[in-house]
Amino acid sequence: MNTDNNNSAGESSIRVPMDTLVQFTHGVFRSVGLTDADSSLAATLLVEADLCGVHSHGVSRLAVYLDCFRRRVLNAVPKITVSPCGPSVATIDGDNALGLLVAKQGMDYAVQIAKTTGVGVVLARRSSHFGMAATYVRTATDQGLAAIVGSNAPPVMVPWNGVTAKLGTNPIAGGVPGTTENGPFVFDMATSVVARGWITLAARNGSSIPDGWAIDCTGRPTTDPKAALAGSVLPFAGAKGFALAAFVDLLAGVMSGASYAENVGSVFNKHNLPVNIGHFFIAIDVARFLSPEQYTLRYNEFVRSLKSASASEVQSVRMPGDRALATKIDHLQFGIPLSASIMADLSDVAAKCGLDLDVRTSKPKSEANGCDARTD
Amino acid sequence: MNTDNNNSAGESSIRVPMDTLVQFTHGVFRSVGLTDADSSLAATLLVEADLCGVHSHGVSRLAVYLDCFRRRVLNAVPKITVSPCGPSVATIDGDNALGLLVAKQGMDYAVQIAKTTGVGVVLARRSSHFGMAATYVRTATDQGLAAIVGSNAPPVMVPWNGVTAKLGTNPIAGGVPGTTENGPFVFDMATSVVARGWITLAARNGSSIPDGWAIDCTGRPTTDPKAALAGSVLPFAGAKGFALAAFVDLLAGVMSGASYAENVGSVFNKHNLPVNIGHFFIAIDVARFLSPEQYTLRYNEFVRSLKSASASEVQSVRMPGDRALATKIDHLQFGIPLSASIMADLSDVAAKCGLDLDVRTSKPKSEANGCDARTD
Repeated sequence: MNTDNNNSAGESSIRVPMDTLVQFTHGVFRSVGLTDADSSLAATLLVEADLCGVHSHGVSRLAVYLDCFRRRVLNAVPKITVSPCGPSVATIDGDNALGLLVAKQGMDYAVQIAKTTGVGVVLARRSSHFGMAATYVRTATDQGLAAIVGSNAPPVMVPWNGVTAKLGTNPIAGGVPGTTENGPFVFDMATSVVARGWITLAARNGSSIPDGWAIDCTGRPTTDPKAALAGSVLPFAGAKGFALAAFVDLLAGVMSGASYAENVGSVFNKHNLPVNIGHFFIAIDVARFLSPEQYTLRYNEFVRSLKSASASEVQSVRMPGDRALATKIDHLQFGIPLSASIMADLSDVAAKCGLDLDVRTSKPKSEANGCDARTD
Repeated sequence: MNTDNNNSAGESSIRVPMDTLVQFTHGVFRSVGLTDADSSLAATLLVEADLCGVHSHGVSRLAVYLDCFRRRVLNAVPKITVSPCGPSVATIDGDNALGLLVAKQGMDYAVQIAKTTGVGVVLARRSSHFGMAATYVRTATDQGLAAIVGSNAPPVMVPWNGVTAKLGTNPIAGGVPGTTENGPFVFDMATSVVARGWITLAARNGSSIPDGWAIDCTGRPTTDPKAALAGSVLPFAGAKGFALAAFVDLLAGVMSGASYAENVGSVFNKHNLPVNIGHFFIAIDVARFLSPEQYTLRYNEFVRSLKSASASEVQSVRMPGDRALATKIDHLQFGIPLSASIMADLSDVAAKCGLDLDVRTSKPKSEANGCDARTD
């Protein structure tokens, strides 16, 4: 769930207007050689996560992306190719681009197919980290389509009953369109018990982690975050989370032509190899099945029914996607709260890229120098 | 998971050959007025669950189905209609048939579409309980297709953070084809922590249930199975299971035209109303994306990778679907073990239908009388 992700905006956070953050992020991508159009798109997609309060998948990732472009683990000027392989299916070759750009094209194409035939399935290979999966679900739901999205990831999670990491925390996301009365239904969940970021945070703070989150490198349950980081995280709900994680990898990895299982690359690999992550995108045109009026009536009634299970206003049922939407409305009006820790990271990124840290202006100090990945 | 389902075959079970059980089940369906072809198909589909060791979804359901046909809650002579609504999508109107028959047609049609366009999506309405979801996944995987299947169900599960039941334990299942070396990958999971059957069993045995399975009718956690049965079961992994259960209902119920949320009918309703359950079937043609040779190589390597996470032969990683397949091989050879409790139920069903309990012969005592739903 979005709601499970790190929200690192704390007491000490400052509010940054969305446009300012997009502009700064655009500058960072430009500085490593992405085209103006790609920089603009990637910046918008990345900041969308921060807008929704999912800071773990937003600009906090810029430092890693920057490093990947500099080490040529990511390709700043990719030729992303979509290849239809049937009336309703296609593959997409990411040419080692930033995953956000591959994923946007993947979902856009799935939507395009679905508008023609009712459903579209696109499998992506030679991609990389695509940020927040919910972003692409929203691409579909905003156009009146239902969607299912998944991605594999580097191995940090153990198969159920196993002792060594062979799967990523492979996220699965899905959703259906909203109405005037209710926002879209959008869920986005890692298939692990918790995001690994929480364990890293516990290790940094010297605190222990709850039982059931992770095992150590010998396969024993552990509450020591350092032992957990050297070991593996556990799938949620045991065999069920494992089955979902593996199924995501079968579609996104095995069937797409990407890497899969233990062979998915990490951006932290020493040999600067492409990570070859895979994704899948399924879009289904709601209008093929029922009229807009029928859908509006039924969806609103569905939401009303589920929310009527609430005990009180304090203990109330929240639909997946509701919190992200409320957060987005707040952040669009009042700015995106960024923690001191993220601001420090951005400061470092700015210095490396020859950009002003002042995110309100954020222009490259010089277009000609800096950290263009193709010149170092 | 199949592995989470009740396996009621105990020490006191007897082994019944598959053909014998199919023949008996066929006789039961014939006795309530189903055509010979429908009876034969429904019997094969139902016994498939017992063959795989999932007795909770096999012939143990015959008594309830029989009752439904007698009360006209189910239609013995339905006109099931498939209506294409786009090149890759269709709806299916079950005309209140036994869900197994609707589901088989639904997946068959999704497969047919997928073989033409690469992917097929079929949404079913006016259906009923469809038995074991994995059965329809296997329909697809046996023909070289990947599949995702889901169904809604009568409300017994609480939305996360709520206090009253508004959702079924809506199962979601999926899979990809196997190879010569490895069986198909097939998962099939309720979106609740446990199947409600386990709570019923605890109530019958006078034992308590673990914390985290259910809440009572006031929304408080309970370990008392009777209080749990009067209350609601909980979704697995909290907000994640809730999101999946709701998403299944949005596709299978809201979008299909079936009932949804709290309005899904129970076969135990007093007014003999149709239950109007909905399902969804997604089939994806693997061969559109990679050659059989590539798939075999990659799938086998995927399975090898995951299994290599095993600590030992005793504590080993099992792929979803493996246990069901091994069980099926055993039961085909040595017969299906049926518990004394299931045998007693079948005895009761036999008496009601005018069939011999001797499942080895199981012929209707008279074709002309018995409990044909349309004559009582």
